[in-house]
Amino acid sequence: MRDVYHKQLDSISRSLVEMTALVGMTLERATTALLKADLPIAEAVIAAGDEVDALQRALDKLTLDLFARQQPVAGDLRTLVTSLRMSTYLERMGDLAGHVAKIARMRYPATAVPSDLRATLKQMGHIGVELAGKIGKIIEGRDLDAARSLDIDDDAVDHLHRTVFAALTSSPEPYTSETVIDVILISRYYERFADHAVAVAKQLVFLIAGEEDRTADVKG
Amino acid sequence: MRDVYHKQLDSISRSLVEMTALVGMTLERATTALLKADLPIAEAVIAAGDEVDALQRALDKLTLDLFARQQPVAGDLRTLVTSLRMSTYLERMGDLAGHVAKIARMRYPATAVPSDLRATLKQMGHIGVELAGKIGKIIEGRDLDAARSLDIDDDAVDHLHRTVFAALTSSPEPYTSETVIDVILISRYYERFADHAVAVAKQLVFLIAGEEDRTADVKG
Repeated sequence: MRDVYHKQLDSISRSLVEMTALVGMTLERATTALLKADLPIAEAVIAAGDEVDALQRALDKLTLDLFARQQPVAGDLRTLVTSLRMSTYLERMGDLAGHVAKIARMRYPATAVPSDLRATLKQMGHIGVELAGKIGKIIEGRDLDAARSLDIDDDAVDHLHRTVFAALTSSPEPYTSETVIDVILISRYYERFADHAVAVAKQLVFLIAGEEDRTADVKG
Repeated sequence: MRDVYHKQLDSISRSLVEMTALVGMTLERATTALLKADLPIAEAVIAAGDEVDALQRALDKLTLDLFARQQPVAGDLRTLVTSLRMSTYLERMGDLAGHVAKIARMRYPATAVPSDLRATLKQMGHIGVELAGKIGKIIEGRDLDAARSLDIDDDAVDHLHRTVFAALTSSPEPYTSETVIDVILISRYYERFADHAVAVAKQLVFLIAGEEDRTADVKG
């Protein structure tokens, strides 16, 4: 019985890693769709939203099932509660990548982003993809230091977000309102994507640190 | 023992209702701060964010404690999982109200919103406050039909959000980029506030419908 249980716990962890990979790939493709005004890629990203949702539903079902059947305590209980929270954040990251793709689709065949802001948004997308990869690795290896270090990436994205604000408001040739709206929302989607990645990492810190506390309690 | 348990479950429900009241009041005051350029109210709203966070932490602690000590099953298990999700959404609604207040503070003593858009944003704020009140009542009374009807309010907010887009991009006298950014972000914060209120209601539908399913199973 315990073997089945631990296989199910592993399966939850694998599903979470799978979700990080999917939302990372989705954001990468959304950025490509945005910067290359590539309609088929934008459509594919938007369709992939259903895939993320399906993964989340399957994962939550498994988690609730484990709650109900196994009545977990202590560390396992924390793992399940943490998984529920992480899957919510990861699903939201998929939504945000989808929002970027929807703006790309709305402006096709034009590009939503003026040439002087492309590098900044590309960089925001790049850091977002890296963050998704990092949290996947952290979930696999449960590496507490790495989880804490994600704040540096998040700060970089926040800085780029402020750069976008400054560029939009101080350009000698004013942008159209449409461009200002598109770019500020895209920038915010990237910024929120990074925030959610950090939120996933914080859940892991809570989980692992909690277990360390518990180990300390047992030792003491 | 069961009495203590059910008192704790009631206490979770009361805390959730308290959170809905707090985030509703916070959004109402944020809208006032925004439209009247009232700095003290903006500061008070921003400070109230800590109060919402504290409520959430206390609530989550109580929920986790109940999980660990009582090993709930079936309906009670669903109630606890749902509470964890709802508290996350409510905390986010408090954040979004705080974002509105931060823009008010940033532009003080000027107002962030041009006169022709004030009525629309005021209406978005008004519906948001009503939504918060409604979900409070739904949590208290667990009224499934009311929970499902919130989509109508959410649609109204989405419609107003599109109105804001249209006004910003089709104005005969273009707004400054700063105004466009402020207004589109404020509008999005209201729209997200409403989305989260609906997400809370959906959690309740899931909870109550799940119990109805279970009752049906038992009867069948």
